[in-house]
Amino acid sequence: MPDSGPIAVDAMGGDDGLRVMLAGVARARRAAEGTRFLLVGDEDAIAKGLDAHPGLRGASEIVHAPETVKGDEKPSAAIRRAKKTSLGIAIDLVKQGRAAAAVSSGNTGAMMAMAKVALRTMPGIDRPALAAPLPTLGDNDVIMLDLGANAEVDAQNLVQFAVMGAAFARTVLDLETPRVALLNIGSEDQKGTDTIRDASQLLKQGKRLPLRFDGFIEGDRLSRGDVDVIVCDGFSGNIALKTAEGTARFVADLLKRAFRSSVRSKIGFLISRPATELLRDHLDPNKHNGAVFLGLNGIVVKSHGGANELGVATAIGNAVKMVRHDLTRRIAEDLGRFEKAAAA
Amino acid sequence: MPDSGPIAVDAMGGDDGLRVMLAGVARARRAAEGTRFLLVGDEDAIAKGLDAHPGLRGASEIVHAPETVKGDEKPSAAIRRAKKTSLGIAIDLVKQGRAAAAVSSGNTGAMMAMAKVALRTMPGIDRPALAAPLPTLGDNDVIMLDLGANAEVDAQNLVQFAVMGAAFARTVLDLETPRVALLNIGSEDQKGTDTIRDASQLLKQGKRLPLRFDGFIEGDRLSRGDVDVIVCDGFSGNIALKTAEGTARFVADLLKRAFRSSVRSKIGFLISRPATELLRDHLDPNKHNGAVFLGLNGIVVKSHGGANELGVATAIGNAVKMVRHDLTRRIAEDLGRFEKAAAA
Repeated sequence: MPDSGPIAVDAMGGDDGLRVMLAGVARARRAAEGTRFLLVGDEDAIAKGLDAHPGLRGASEIVHAPETVKGDEKPSAAIRRAKKTSLGIAIDLVKQGRAAAAVSSGNTGAMMAMAKVALRTMPGIDRPALAAPLPTLGDNDVIMLDLGANAEVDAQNLVQFAVMGAAFARTVLDLETPRVALLNIGSEDQKGTDTIRDASQLLKQGKRLPLRFDGFIEGDRLSRGDVDVIVCDGFSGNIALKTAEGTARFVADLLKRAFRSSVRSKIGFLISRPATELLRDHLDPNKHNGAVFLGLNGIVVKSHGGANELGVATAIGNAVKMVRHDLTRRIAEDLGRFEKAAAA
Repeated sequence: MPDSGPIAVDAMGGDDGLRVMLAGVARARRAAEGTRFLLVGDEDAIAKGLDAHPGLRGASEIVHAPETVKGDEKPSAAIRRAKKTSLGIAIDLVKQGRAAAAVSSGNTGAMMAMAKVALRTMPGIDRPALAAPLPTLGDNDVIMLDLGANAEVDAQNLVQFAVMGAAFARTVLDLETPRVALLNIGSEDQKGTDTIRDASQLLKQGKRLPLRFDGFIEGDRLSRGDVDVIVCDGFSGNIALKTAEGTARFVADLLKRAFRSSVRSKIGFLISRPATELLRDHLDPNKHNGAVFLGLNGIVVKSHGGANELGVATAIGNAVKMVRHDLTRRIAEDLGRFEKAAAA
């Protein structure tokens, strides 16, 4: 499965459907000239939708899929009709080597299940993990994984996530030796579960890893920008991610309420609008869209179900970056080096 | 151990020491006239510190403690000299029935260990949990537990936390039938770990519980105000709590940066200052201070190590409220009712 060629896009997934997906792909194409796309979904609907995007029409090919995966469909049900659905066919194009990556805003669970069956995990990886870049106060985003693919993990899984996350940061963030930390409920050695303490020991011993292990990090430091990769189980990772999203919205809602509390505040708000828009811009989830299932033999990118045109374009842009940086091969190399170091 | 009498305060705990603790107690006394205090710590230092608080002097008694627990001291080490330390003696006063509750800003782990040994868990409770009120967009705070006392739990622990959290909401928030939810990584029945699914089943079956079980809640809804009690293991609870704290600070920092980005924004900021101060006020951790170890035969309240005078006063105010509402007895009653219902 070579890491080059067109990007397969599930044109039917996402809360807002085809129109937003096509607009997002068109936007991504303008940002990454030369990229080609396989648009997977209902042939007639896509052909009609492309009328609004003549530039994209020339850079893409339609692959017909008669069915779509529903947002609340169980992975076990979705997988039985994988070959007929836009999501399943998009992933299969990666398996066949016809696409360099697949992108979808559809059902996460179904996507994970289909991708695992079609692409299989890399040698040395027991379980894939969902990774995404999150905003920080620093210059770079921080890569966090696992964000929900594995509710329960063992120490070996966490170590593999660390190596994969570091490889991701090395390619996408262009860092030589990413700083990696384990999410924990304290910074001292004895804190947390046996699993996390064991993982910490293994990472401390892994001297030839292409990463710098920085020990434990607590939830209040996720967005400080002082580490590059944060590793955790999918349960606490998902809770941390959603708590951060919810709290950012909570603070924004309180701010809105406060600005509305008096005439004076309303005037101040109008004057300082460029500032509050800068804030909104920095926190816009559509600018940080595109989680990737790391550890598979191929690139599969999950765009947020509620992503808008910008969000879809960001997710596709991330997929393009991963392809150009040959992410799958580089993760395999880093894993190989680590395995050898462990064996030595 | 009767739920009445003075509040024992570990006057030596906390990052800022005696001065802040005494100022906080003095403030709490003014807010809850008639309350009496046992100030535990270095006798001479406290006597001298009370010169600044003549009103408090008349309402308190000093209990000498020759030693203090250090902030980074291991619980196992602290517990060996419990009888000599201000923290250990404050908790022991509750055990002896000389105090109605103990409050400290000191070492959480040591506090938990000492409180468990001295006060023991209530009948029907396997493990105590750390609970605290958190701010929401609604009218009430939400009670969240466990916030870090138990990194790993089983389904029975979670059910016990639910009953204790509900009892806490019934007394402190004065709600008849609190809405209780389990923190999870999705809202559908099949989501999460076996432990959490089992706990959900048990809570659904518990028909005579003095609570309404609302199923699963995700991290992005913690501060929406649509539930009254959120139950989780201490690992993900601690991570959610700290992630929320960190994100609120992150957004505030971004806002500050944005307001400084231009002269226009600076002017807007000055004009809308009352609004941003309203926001700061709502989010001030010192206004939501005072976590309690639920499930012990006595009230032990943990104030944040970095709490200021207001924070200490809030924590003590919460302790006073718990005493007045006879929290320990009401939790025992609710547990008894639940046990009987389970047996029937």
